[in-house]
Order: sequence, then C-alpha cells, then structure tokens
Amino acid sequence: MRTETDLLGNMMIPDDAYYGIQTERARINFAVSGKTAVDVPNYLWSIAAIKRAAAEANSKIGALDPTIAKAIIQAATEVMEHKFDDQFPIDIFQGGGGTSTNMNMNEVIANRANEILTGSKGYDVVHPNTHVNMCQSTNDVIPAAMKITCCLNLVDLISTVSRLEEILEQKTKQFAQVVKLGRTCLQDAVPMTLGQQFSGYYHQIKRLHQSLTEARKQTFALPLGATAIGTGLSTQQGYLEHVYPLLQQITGEPFVAEENFFDGLQNGDSYLEVAAQIKKLAVFLSKMSTDFRLQGSGPRAGFNELLIPAVQPGSSIMPGKINPVIPELINQITYQVIGNDLSITMAVEGGELDLNVWEPVIIKALFESCGLLTNAIPILIDKCLLELQPNIEVCRRYAEQSTALATVISTLFGYKVGSRVAIQAFEQNLSVREVVIAEKILTESQADYLLDPMTMCDPAASAAAIHRYHQENS
Amino acid sequence: MRTETDLLGNMMIPDDAYYGIQTERARINFAVSGKTAVDVPNYLWSIAAIKRAAAEANSKIGALDPTIAKAIIQAATEVMEHKFDDQFPIDIFQGGGGTSTNMNMNEVIANRANEILTGSKGYDVVHPNTHVNMCQSTNDVIPAAMKITCCLNLVDLISTVSRLEEILEQKTKQFAQVVKLGRTCLQDAVPMTLGQQFSGYYHQIKRLHQSLTEARKQTFALPLGATAIGTGLSTQQGYLEHVYPLLQQITGEPFVAEENFFDGLQNGDSYLEVAAQIKKLAVFLSKMSTDFRLQGSGPRAGFNELLIPAVQPGSSIMPGKINPVIPELINQITYQVIGNDLSITMAVEGGELDLNVWEPVIIKALFESCGLLTNAIPILIDKCLLELQPNIEVCRRYAEQSTALATVISTLFGYKVGSRVAIQAFEQNLSVREVVIAEKILTESQADYLLDPMTMCDPAASAAAIHRYHQENS
Amino acid sequence: MRTETDLLGNMMIPDDAYYGIQTERARINFAVSGKTAVDVPNYLWSIAAIKRAAAEANSKIGALDPTIAKAIIQAATEVMEHKFDDQFPIDIFQGGGGTSTNMNMNEVIANRANEILTGSKGYDVVHPNTHVNMCQSTNDVIPAAMKITCCLNLVDLISTVSRLEEILEQKTKQFAQVVKLGRTCLQDAVPMTLGQQFSGYYHQIKRLHQSLTEARKQTFALPLGATAIGTGLSTQQGYLEHVYPLLQQITGEPFVAEENFFDGLQNGDSYLEVAAQIKKLAVFLSKMSTDFRLQGSGPRAGFNELLIPAVQPGSSIMPGKINPVIPELINQITYQVIGNDLSITMAVEGGELDLNVWEPVIIKALFESCGLLTNAIPILIDKCLLELQPNIEVCRRYAEQSTALATVISTLFGYKVGSRVAIQAFEQNLSVREVVIAEKILTESQADYLLDPMTMCDPAASAAAIHRYHQENS
Amino acid sequence: MRTETDLLGNMMIPDDAYYGIQTERARINFAVSGKTAVDVPNYLWSIAAIKRAAAEANSKIGALDPTIAKAIIQAATEVMEHKFDDQFPIDIFQGGGGTSTNMNMNEVIANRANEILTGSKGYDVVHPNTHVNMCQSTNDVIPAAMKITCCLNLVDLISTVSRLEEILEQKTKQFAQVVKLGRTCLQDAVPMTLGQQFSGYYHQIKRLHQSLTEARKQTFALPLGATAIGTGLSTQQGYLEHVYPLLQQITGEPFVAEENFFDGLQNGDSYLEVAAQIKKLAVFLSKMSTDFRLQGSGPRAGFNELLIPAVQPGSSIMPGKINPVIPELINQITYQVIGNDLSITMAVEGGELDLNVWEPVIIKALFESCGLLTNAIPILIDKCLLELQPNIEVCRRYAEQSTALATVISTLFGYKVGSRVAIQAFEQNLSVREVVIAEKILTESQADYLLDPMTMCDPAASAAAIHRYHQENS
Repeated sequence: MRTETDLLGNMMIPDDAYYGIQTERARINFAVSGKTAVDVPNYLWSIAAIKRAAAEANSKIGALDPTIAKAIIQAATEVMEHKFDDQFPIDIFQGGGGTSTNMNMNEVIANRANEILTGSKGYDVVHPNTHVNMCQSTNDVIPAAMKITCCLNLVDLISTVSRLEEILEQKTKQFAQVVKLGRTCLQDAVPMTLGQQFSGYYHQIKRLHQSLTEARKQTFALPLGATAIGTGLSTQQGYLEHVYPLLQQITGEPFVAEENFFDGLQNGDSYLEVAAQIKKLAVFLSKMSTDFRLQGSGPRAGFNELLIPAVQPGSSIMPGKINPVIPELINQITYQVIGNDLSITMAVEGGELDLNVWEPVIIKALFESCGLLTNAIPILIDKCLLELQPNIEVCRRYAEQSTALATVISTLFGYKVGSRVAIQAFEQNLSVREVVIAEKILTESQADYLLDPMTMCDPAASAAAIHRYHQENS
Repeated sequence: MRTETDLLGNMMIPDDAYYGIQTERARINFAVSGKTAVDVPNYLWSIAAIKRAAAEANSKIGALDPTIAKAIIQAATEVMEHKFDDQFPIDIFQGGGGTSTNMNMNEVIANRANEILTGSKGYDVVHPNTHVNMCQSTNDVIPAAMKITCCLNLVDLISTVSRLEEILEQKTKQFAQVVKLGRTCLQDAVPMTLGQQFSGYYHQIKRLHQSLTEARKQTFALPLGATAIGTGLSTQQGYLEHVYPLLQQITGEPFVAEENFFDGLQNGDSYLEVAAQIKKLAVFLSKMSTDFRLQGSGPRAGFNELLIPAVQPGSSIMPGKINPVIPELINQITYQVIGNDLSITMAVEGGELDLNVWEPVIIKALFESCGLLTNAIPILIDKCLLELQPNIEVCRRYAEQSTALATVISTLFGYKVGSRVAIQAFEQNLSVREVVIAEKILTESQADYLLDPMTMCDPAASAAAIHRYHQENS
Repeated sequence: MRTETDLLGNMMIPDDAYYGIQTERARINFAVSGKTAVDVPNYLWSIAAIKRAAAEANSKIGALDPTIAKAIIQAATEVMEHKFDDQFPIDIFQGGGGTSTNMNMNEVIANRANEILTGSKGYDVVHPNTHVNMCQSTNDVIPAAMKITCCLNLVDLISTVSRLEEILEQKTKQFAQVVKLGRTCLQDAVPMTLGQQFSGYYHQIKRLHQSLTEARKQTFALPLGATAIGTGLSTQQGYLEHVYPLLQQITGEPFVAEENFFDGLQNGDSYLEVAAQIKKLAVFLSKMSTDFRLQGSGPRAGFNELLIPAVQPGSSIMPGKINPVIPELINQITYQVIGNDLSITMAVEGGELDLNVWEPVIIKALFESCGLLTNAIPILIDKCLLELQPNIEVCRRYAEQSTALATVISTLFGYKVGSRVAIQAFEQNLSVREVVIAEKILTESQADYLLDPMTMCDPAASAAAIHRYHQENS
Repeated sequence: MRTETDLLGNMMIPDDAYYGIQTERARINFAVSGKTAVDVPNYLWSIAAIKRAAAEANSKIGALDPTIAKAIIQAATEVMEHKFDDQFPIDIFQGGGGTSTNMNMNEVIANRANEILTGSKGYDVVHPNTHVNMCQSTNDVIPAAMKITCCLNLVDLISTVSRLEEILEQKTKQFAQVVKLGRTCLQDAVPMTLGQQFSGYYHQIKRLHQSLTEARKQTFALPLGATAIGTGLSTQQGYLEHVYPLLQQITGEPFVAEENFFDGLQNGDSYLEVAAQIKKLAVFLSKMSTDFRLQGSGPRAGFNELLIPAVQPGSSIMPGKINPVIPELINQITYQVIGNDLSITMAVEGGELDLNVWEPVIIKALFESCGLLTNAIPILIDKCLLELQPNIEVCRRYAEQSTALATVISTLFGYKVGSRVAIQAFEQNLSVREVVIAEKILTESQADYLLDPMTMCDPAASAAAIHRYHQENS
C-alpha cells in the first residue's frame, strides 16, 4: 500500500493500483450500479485520446516538458489499447459531472507516466492535475469525450442500419408479387403486395439512416478548450490551434471547436438530438416487429400470413410452440430506449447555469440505448428478416375475400351501391366478385379485370381498369 | 371602466368585471393554453368552499366582522353555484404556484361582497387580501383546493369504475361456457373460456377499484392553515379548530389538517399517488382494448372471434368497413394519460425548498387525465362492452384445432412424445386428436375425455381426466 | 330536424346543422375531452384546403362534374374562412384514425354545396363520399392535413423563435461588460461576463432555430393520393399530377407527394421529429428559465444577481413579494411538452400494419405543445427578457471574492500551491488576491493583471497575462 | 462437447456446461445488453426456490419419483447457494416472456440432478421439461419468481428507507432551534426553523415507508399453478395445495395463490404499483437533494446556509472547490428511475391477451431502479446527511432581513400597510423592523415580540403575539 494525499487528507492505495486517491474516494462514494466507464464502448478510449492530444499540443507550445509529454502520450496510448481497463473502478453514476472519471484518467496516466520515467508510480515527475490535465478541466474534457464516444458508437449503429436498409430493399423486391390484404384499424381493407408493405419499411429506414447520419454531425463540435465554464481560463497560447488537428489525427474524425464554448457547456441538445434519432429508430423497429408478430400470429388461430423463422422452442409446457422471440426482443428494447430518452431529457432539462452536471446519467442511458440497438439489429436481420417468408396462399385468399374490394364498386357506381354490395357479401358470406356478378352489376369479364387484387395494388393499373370500364360503357 | 391599484401601479378594469387588477395582470401574463380554471371540474367550487369556511371560522373566532363575513359567505356560495364562472379568465398554466387564481377568487368575492354590502363593487369594505384571504395564503389554499378537487373528481371516476366492475362480472358469467383458444406471444396456446378471459379483467378492475379508493383517502389531509410555508404565520387563535369542521360540513367529505404542514407544502406525493393509480387504470383499459381489437380483427383476414358493436361507419372510402373505434379511443386516451403522469412526475420532482410551485401544470395534467377516463369509461361500457359478443363457432374451432392440445400428451407421455405429436399435427395439417388416434397413442374414447377443450379449461377436470387415464392404464 | 341514413340506420339531424349523420354518431361516441378540431389552429383549414384542391383536380381530369366541383370549392373556401367553425362538434380524441373528422368535413361541404346548388341541404346533388371525398380516403387526407397543419403552425413558432434569437443576441452584447461569477454544481467557479452567459443562450437558440427549420421541411411530403393503404386505389388518372400543384397554390407551401406512400401511412416519424425539436426548444427555455430563477433568487437570501422584471404581485399573504412568474410559466409548460412528447412517441410506436390510427392523440398532443410555446415565447420576451437587468455590483463582488480565482495560481505554480491558497482564502475569509499578496506569492502589481476577473473571462487575455508573468520571471 | 437435441435440431454443448441446448440457443439469440439474470439480486434464487417447492410438492402427491425429486431438490438448493451462477449466460432482455431463463434453470437443475443420480450430466433420468418443470409453465414460474424477487428486494430497500426515516427524525430534532428563512418561488419568504424544514422530509419519508410496505404486500399473491394461460392445465391433483406451504417454508414469506390466475398472467399492475412507489421515493430524494444543493450553494456567491460534507475534491482545475456530489448522485439516479418507470409502464400497457410477454424488460428496469436506490440511500445517509450542518449565522441573518416579515404588519394593519412597509424596507435597504420603528407603526418593544423570527416559526406563538398586540392596543 502507498499513501496518497488530497484536499481532504490521506488514503491508502494498493501498490498495484495505477489509479490514486481521488479515484479511490469516488469508487466508494458512488458504488450504486455496478456499471463503470469500461462498460461504455469507446468512452475511456475517447478520454485517453484527449489526454494524448493535449499532451502533444502542450509539448508543441512549450507548456509541457517534452519528456513528460512523451511519457503521458505513451501512457495514454496504453489506456487506448485497453491495457488499463481494470483501473477504472468508479460507478458510471457519479456526482460532480464526471470529475471523478476525469481524475481517474489523470491519475492512471500520471502513475503510469511516472513509472515510465522513474520506474515507480507516484506523482513526483508527472502530476495528474498539473501535467496530465494541463489546459483542461473536467468540464470540457468529459463533454468532449462524450461527443467523441457518441460519434464512434454511432458509426457502429449506422453501419447496422445501413445493412438493415439493404435487407429491407431486397425484401421489397423479393415480395413484390405476393398479393395480400391491407389492414387498417386491424380490419380488412383493400389489397396490396407484401413488397409494398416492405417498401414502406425500406423508405422509413432509409430516412432514419439519413437522420442518424445528420445527427452524428452534431457530435463533431467539441467544447475542448472551454475549461471550467467556457472562458478557456488556464489554456495557454497556441493550445487550441494545436489540440484539434492532433485530435483529428488520433481519432480520424473531423472534430472541431464549438462555435461558442458557453453554449457547449450549458446545453445538452446534441444528446437530446442523438437520443431522439435513436428513439425514432427504435420506434420504427418496434412497429415493424409488431407487424411481424401480428402477421405471424397463429398458426391456426391467427393471421398466419407470415412465417417467422424459428430460432428456439417457445414453451416449457406446450410442445411444438414457436414464438416470435426476435421481434419481441425488439419491442422490449424499445421500451427501454424510450425510457432512456426520458432520462436523458430530464438530465438536459435539469441543467443549471454554466455546466450540465447530469452528464453521467446521460452517458449511462444514451450509450445503453445505442448499444442495445447496435447489438439487436444484426440479430433482427440474421435471425428474423433474412429467412422471413410469406404464407403465399393465405395471403392471396385474404386478398380475394375482403369485402373492401367493394371500394371499386363505390368508385364506379357511388358509395351507396358500394356499401350495399359490401354488406351483402359480408352477410351472405360471399366474395364481392360473387355478389356483383349475381347482382348483374358487373359481367364476369368485367369483374376479372376490375376485381383482380393485383390490379388494385397499382394505382395506374386500377385507374386504367376503371378508365377501360368507363370507355366500354359510355 | 374603473381603476384599480396594486404594488406595481394602476390598471383599468371593466365595470362589469368582478375580478380585479391582479386577475387582469395575470390574464395577460399567462395567456398560453386557452384553458382556464373553469375547465377543471370542481376546482373553483373547492376554492370558494375554502373561502366560505375561512370566513365562517374567522367570524366565529372574532377575527372578522360578522357583516363582512356574511357577505363573503354569500359571495363564495354564489361562486359555488357557478354564478361567476365567466369571471375567472386566467390561464390554467401560471407562474407563482396559483397565486393568480387565489387572488382571482379573492377579488371576485371581495367585489361581490362589497356589492352586497354597499351596492357597488370595490374593496372599501371587503378587501381581497385583508378579509377574503384572512388566515390564508395561496400556498395553503391552492394545494388544499387541489386535494378537494381531486377528492371530488375521484368520486366520479370511481363511480364509473364501479359500474365497469359490475359489467365485467356480468360478462364473466355470460361468457362462462364459450370455449376459445388462449394465446401467448400471439401464438396459439391451450383452450380457455371467454368467461375466464373476462374473469381476469374483472379481478383486475376490482383491484384497481380498491387502489383508487385507497388513493382517494390521501386527498383527505389538507395543508389548509399552513399559510405561506407551513408555519401557519397569520392564522389566528382558534382558526384551525374551526375551519376544518366547517369545511367538512360544506363539502361532506372528512377533510382534516395534514399531520405536518411543511411536508404538505414541500411534497406532491399525493398527486403522484393519484396519477399513478389513474395511470394503472388507463393501462389496464388500454390492454383490454387491445385485446378486443385483436380478437375483433377481421372479419375475414383476422382473428374474428369477438364481435365489437358497430357504432359508426368505419371508412370514407371502403364501404361496409366497421372499425373498433371505442377500444381505439381508449388506447389514445391512455397515451395521453401516461404522458400526463410524466408531466406530473416532473412537476413534483422539480419542487424546490418550501413550496412546490409547479402545481398549475399538475392541475392541468391530473384533471385532464381524470376527466378523460371519467368520460370514456361509460362510453366503453355502453357502446362496446354491453353488446360485445363472441363468434362462438370460430372460438370453438380455434380451441379444437390448436396443436398446443399436445400439452396433455406431454403430461401423460413426456415432453418428447408431446413434441412429436404437435409437430406432426402441424405439418400434416391435422388436429392433435387425429394424430394421437392415428398413431394409436390414445383410443378414440380416451381422446374424447382427454382432449375436450372444455375439460382443459378447468384444472380440476383436466387433472381428473389425467388421473382417470392413469387409473385405466395402471 | 331531417333524417339521414348510413350503414347503421337512421338518425335525426337538426335542420340548421351542416354536418350529417356520421358526424352526429361520432359526436356522441367520442365526447371525452371537450376539445374539438376547432381548437387546433389551421387544422380545419388544412382539411378544407385539401378538399378544395381535390375538387379542382377532379374537375380538371373530368372525374367530377364542373358544377359540382365549383360548389364544393366554394363550400370548402367558406370553411377555410371560418364560416362553419361551429359545425365541427366531434372530440379531438376519436377512434378510427380521423375518419369522423374527415366525414364531418365531407358532410359539411356536401350539405353546403347542395345548398349552393339547390337551395337546400342534403346529398342529392353532392354526396359526401362520392363527390367531396372523391379520390381520397381518411387515411391519406388526415395525415396530409396534419402535416399541412404542422407546417403552418411551425411557421408561427419559428417566427417567435426568430425573434427570441434576436433578443438573445442583443442581450449578449448589452451584457458584454458585466463581470460575474460562473458556477458549476451550484458552487462558485471562475469569472465570466453576463454577456458570455447569454452568448451561450444565443448560440443555442440559433441552433434550435435551424433544427426547427429543418424539421419543418419534413412536413412538405404528404401521403395525399395514397388513399386507404398506400396503393392509391380509387384515385383516377391525372389526379395526382393536378392535386399537388393546386394544393401548393392554395397553401403557398411546397407540398409534394411522399416518395413512398406506404411509408407515409405506416410511420409517424415526422411527428416524432417535430415533437423532438419542440421538446429540445422547451428544454432549453426551461433551463434558461431555471437560470433566471436561480440568479434572481433573493432579494436578500439568494443570489440576487439578476433583476427579473416584476409583472404582478407575488403573494396573497406576503406583501411586497415578487415572483419570477414568467420563467416559472416556461418551466411548467416544458413539463407538459415533455409529457406530450411521450404521448406522441407511444402513439407512433403503437402503430400497426398499414396505417397509424393513433393520429388523433398525436394531433392533440403535438399542437398543444406547439401552441403553448408559440404563445409563451413572446410573453417570455416581452415580460421578462426585454427588461431583464443585472445587479452589477453584486455580480462584480461575487467575481472578485471567489476562491476559484486560485485556478490562476495553479496554472502558474501547480495544483498543490493553488489548493493551499484556495483553502487559506476560504478558511480565513479572505480573497485570493489578499492571500497571494500576504503569502508573497505575487506582488500587488502582478496580482492586478493576473487576478482581474475581467481578464479571466477572455482566454487570450488570461493566456497573455500568464505569458507576461512567465516572461517577467524568467 | 456433448450433443443436445430439441425441436429445431442438434447443438454442441461444452462438456462442463450444466445448461443445455435451449440455453445455448437463447444465449446467442439475445446477446444485446451484457446483463444477465445473475445481475438481478434474488432472481435466480427465486426461480430455484420455485423449482424446489414444485419438486417437493410433486413428490408428495406421487406425481414425481421420490429419487428424482430428491435430486432436483438438491440441485435447486445448490443453485440457491450460488454454486451455478456462471451457468446462466442468457441476456436479461429476451423474447418469449422468460421461457429461456426458465428453461435455463430447468436444464441446469436437470443436468445437475442427473449428475447426482448417475454421475454424469444428461437428461436420461431427470428431464428439464418432464420432471423439473412438472406442473409448471414459464408463464406462471417467471411471473411468480418476479414477484418473489420483488418481495425480497423490497425488504432491502425498505430497510434503508427505515434507516433514512430515523436519521431524518434525528435531524428534525437536531435542527429545531436553527432559525432560517423560508423561500417560495426561490424568493425570500417568512422565517421557519431548519428543524421544520426537515420535519417535512421526515413526515414524507414516513409516508413513503408506509406506501412501500403496502406495495410489498401486492407481491405476496403469485400466479404459480396457473401454468400456460391461467387454466392450470397440466397441474396434478394436490399440487396447488402443497406447493404454496412449501414455498412459504423455503422463502419465509407468506406467498399465496392469486385470487384469479387469468388476472395474474394478463396484468402487470403489481409491477406498476411497485414502480410507482419506487418512483415516488426517488422523486422525494431528488427534491430533498435539490434543496441541499440550493442551500449549500456558494460558498460566497450562493445561499451558503447549509454545509454539505466534503467527500472528495470537486474540480480537476479549480483548487479547493468542493461539490455536492452525493445529492447530485441522487438527482441522476432519479432521472434513471423515472425513465425506468416509463419503460415498465409501456411494457405493462403493451400486454396482449393471456400473458404479458414483456416481463424481461420489466425485470431489467424495475430491479435496476430498486437496486440503485437500495445502494444510494445508505450513501446519502452516511456521506451527506449524518454530517450535514447549518451555517447558523447565515441562516439567522437571512431570517431577520427578509422583507416578508411585513406579513405580520399586514395581519395587524391590512395588506396595504404591509405592502408599503415591505417596499420601503426593500428600497431603502432596511429591515422591516427598522422601517416600522422609524415609521412609528410599532414601538421597539412591540417589534421585539412581533418580529422575532423564532416567534414567527410557531403559529401558536405568532397568534399569541398578535393577540397580545390587539389586547395592548384595544
């Protein structure tokens, strides 16, 4: 054990710990969730990347001794290589707007840098605050790291969305000739193709893909350099000009300084924006999953028009039962994502004065949501969408039997005649075709081209059919 | 026009207005929603009831001239009789925790009391603050009035819930012999009766009825007498002892002083409690409505096992289409109720120090939710539940065809045999009964008593059937 | 009274009513909130504009008799001129995805058009479904009208935001020389100017302005022409090509057909997007309002650094008390806006298959939120921001007294020395300046240029001061 | 590796795994959150307890071979002793309503029981479905286990609440003589004692303690015995009578069968109830924490009336800064708890027909919330409340200086006089006492007893003072 000292006194720190006294205090103060910074992909990497860029910049402008800078850079790089993942024991929830995590990083890097330079841990040569945190404050480092993390995690999410877009486009084509019945208010409506249904999904995901891509751009502007409250106090001449190009180089992403640092520290609208786009994505996935579950209901006492791939037995008691577990998984995740969006909203709304100190709960909630979808979408694709098949016969039967085919009769002969036909078909358990022929409203050959479900799926075709009828009868 | 004066200067008030300068300022300051106190049932009544009780109490303890008191009492009574509903023009949203509405009431009563006593409006004899508001503060009057309002509005809501409970009990009995298929994960499961399904609804509403009744009790304890911050400053000797019995007499409800007035002003947990119970009610109604919509889906391409009464044509384009509009109405209301619960939660969470000043949004959101359900439940009963009918044949067919009947085979011969039967039935499009007879697993007569869906609905009957089988085969 | 007939039978309709039987049924079926379509600005206007454009288009393509079209156009125009506002009695909540409101419009226009053509109401010449609703369905008309409504209401909201942006820019300049103390975690931090604080607000509102403008673009693409489920069934040749240019002409906005109609009917992501941007706006306004309330706390037992204009007396009991009622109003509205965002989210998530039928609750919640902010922002500007003043002396005193000025000492002499100075200042109730001079860490003249709060507000100035110190002492 | 087979085919399972094929499928299908059943305290224990009780019951009624039962009981007991914690690899999110977790338990127990009986894993003697799951279904086991888990976890939470109640009662007494200023709308109001402020907290937590205790009772009624959909199909004669007493014995809690099993499976209102009470608790803790942060703001530019114990340094850049990190932690946790309440609400609302299959997200969200508070409350007590101290001098100075002391003048001389005094005091920067003496409204000795802040804290004392004044001057 070694002794470390801070503002509040001494503490014993295990010899093999690279973290120090402030980490140790925070570890004890905040042990509530069991979740730590390591559980957030790219988060520690992002903080370390900032420390590295800052040390390089400070070295370049002559503020930091090059030897010290070199040791800090090496230490930070090792953190980025996950060599110290076990040295960040603080809960993800934490008072103080991330000071503890920032100091944890400062301490680990300082101890490691001292070790590099002197062979033993300690802050004699490299000090966590004076050197590692030079020109920085928690208040600019943590929000900057959050945005970098967000940027990187969105890359992964967007990549899965992109693949989903491809698959939905494929499905749209694959199902283009499968005629089925549309439903509104869960009631039988007019025919459409399954491809048309999926074209709706496809265009939706295309739009969400764009929205996410746009939202990601909001993560490029960082408050790094704002220090404590936006005034940049303690940054030294030239720091800002050097630190951003270095950060771009390290991360490969076009990070720049926010137009206004005060705005950057006061407001969390970029998290709200990302959370909103993630929520929109989840809401769509959930809606589509509900569709699958409805269309796959049965097999005998439900819609039974969609065959959801079986991925596991469905019941511990009912043999042979298969459940739509993957769509269900998506619904569940969506409930959590919507809950998390609310937590983030409250955290941003609860901001006070010159810094939003609720960032830790934003980190927890936002990246949980992001991760859930990033992990779930490939499952949805591979275990549900790829092998999803229509029950073609059932689909066609529904399409032909709907009394809503009388819509065409309304179009030709007015709403009253249409209604009469629909009711008669329903009450006598006949098809609309059967009624209109029996009632001599249409001839068989007219019914053939006017009541073909596939024709009704195409506005041009159905308008042409109506046009043909009018021409033939004028 | 007459001139009135306050802390901030003069304003012109229309001659026929009973309200005064503070109302007029607030009317202009807060014109955001178009919704006023009149839109909240029982709210103005409750405030006026407090004013009346306070005047009577103050008169009794000698703090208020009896003539003035009598005029205030008459004026307050007239407000309670809705004679001045047009004199409360302030928006329901308002800064200041309800001061404006309290002053609006004080001004209307003061002007009317002056009119009673002197023939003309004005505050010469009766002053809004000095006399009408005597021994009171907005900070105790408004929360007290909110709780009274809540208490009274819950009476109406609970009365509709009570009727719903009766109807669901009736339905449980009415549908006791209708056998149908149970579904989990929207997949065919084992048989049950429709009466059993409704017995679930019935027991749920019974429990919610109790919860609401319990929650209503939390509205009986009022902070009246706490004045500004709970210390009761400005209340006079004997006031508290007299005002509560008088209020009980006026309202007919057992209102008492809160155990601790500081708690009463700081915390809005009673609104959270009522909101939570209202949310639970809405969530149940929504779930039941979704069930109806699912079971009523079709008529040809859906479950088609429940016939939801037709209350209006369902489409402007598809003739003959009927939608489950009443259950849909309930789903929609529920979304608003859940949103409002959140608004209330944030308002209570946002409380600061010695008074929660977010009460206006609580009033708006809580009583909107309460009113929506109070109005919607009778509609749900009269326009949906009363005439709801099963499609008996469809229900029975589903129950007989489910491959999940193989559950009984599992119970008798182990899970593996059950699975084999279920799969075979599914693949060969046979019933479980047909498979087990073909496979000589059961004889026809054994299948008769073991695979009767109605037997499977009753644990005693099904256990007895299994017992009988074992006895016959041991 | 006259008799009307529909699918379900006859009803008596008052002679002076322009609405008909379907409206009357819906009026009774859905009476839950007391709020109707008239309460949503621009909503009825938008539906009528669609009816007008459709009649013109149908006339042009020869589908509709020109005389009938002319009468429909006149009737629709009269609705747009608010001549029939009292003819829309249906609750804003309604099952069926808006069919009732669409039919209400069809009936009012049909009756009025008949009256124009024949002198009396009725559907003999102009039929609600056959003529007024020609080439349309509720399922495309209502979502299209919602988007038009959204587009128009956003114009008003964005215009208030634009004005707020101007005011905040002005304030940024006006307060540029007011030095004050920054605070993080509500604890004294380093100095900044009040102008800098407001520059954060200004840049935030600028960004939100852009986001809202972007979001408004999502309302330009309409599903009009999709009819029931996206297939455009019942639209006639040429309808689509004509109806959009006509709609653009009537509305003055660049409305076009959605790229994919199925997407348009299935998904409500555009409402989520608008709701998210409105929520972001509210969240910012709420955060800023909280800042004002904090900074205006006091006058003696609080921060007392911001003088919020008095707009009304603040207490019914405490004379002279003035409350920050306008910022409080904003906080309250925000709670409702966040609740409404949730209701909208649930409504979109709850979509099923080919149409989202939860639109009525989206209309209610989205336009309530939009209206609250549209009305509240001008109040916030005129009654709070314009006259907002700093308490300059108090601001300066705080800035000079903060122990966090020791940050500069840390920058110069390392974190340990900085800490020692800060603690000494705090414990001995001295300023940092006093301590460093007493301790001979700095000379008086060095302290002058290094510890000037105004210098610390400017990163260039403070870096220059530090540079100067290093040069002087190297 | 060994081969296992199910409905869908074969899979290779590691030799040392006690789980089997269904677990392995689910492990792969649901890998989204990294969180498993082991992360939910008491959850696996509860499921294993049910398995043990069922095996005992089934043995007693002769349905299960005693040797097999004994092995199952031993295996289940070992699971309860945490010997197999690493054998539950499935994500906490999972489609199918918990089937995977139930099967995971069945497989682990079956393999272990076989091992006990035969020396090697496998299902030859003990089968997961046939024997371990006998008389059970996922659909009754998982909800029953959730309620048991809830019951046990609430014991821990309630115990921390109970301690908090004690501490708040102590603080109420400890601070009884500390006079301070009350604030409403963050504006100076009338005096109160810090003890009175804390008495509000104390009474609130007392009420919440009761609510939680009541809510816990809702977890006693279990659906165990309902099997798949509530009909109890596959339970054998005598099972129900035996299994509950055995479960009571094992758990030490009074678990009984729900009055109606259909209700039990359809509805999740008990989770809503527990979530609502947990939310109420969090909301109160958050409100109290905000109070502490406000009152502890400063030390020089804030309220500075409460000294929050320092538990760690507050800034990486500003030396000497200390933040209220523990209250901040509570605020953050509350945002997550409120978000989780929403997720739970959506999961319950989304229930369909005969089983709520969204239970996994309920488990995740509810027990995360419960755990956060169970862990955080002791931290709040030990690291904040115990050592919390008032800044007595500052508190008294605020109390004496408030212009709201003029409330007493209003009470004596009417609102107008009160207002005049308040304004004069404010404008001339005097105390109310100074003004009333200067203006000869009161003598010094009258001011002494009428304007003593401590007197104003006590309604009896202040009423007596007013009474004394009236007597002296009548």
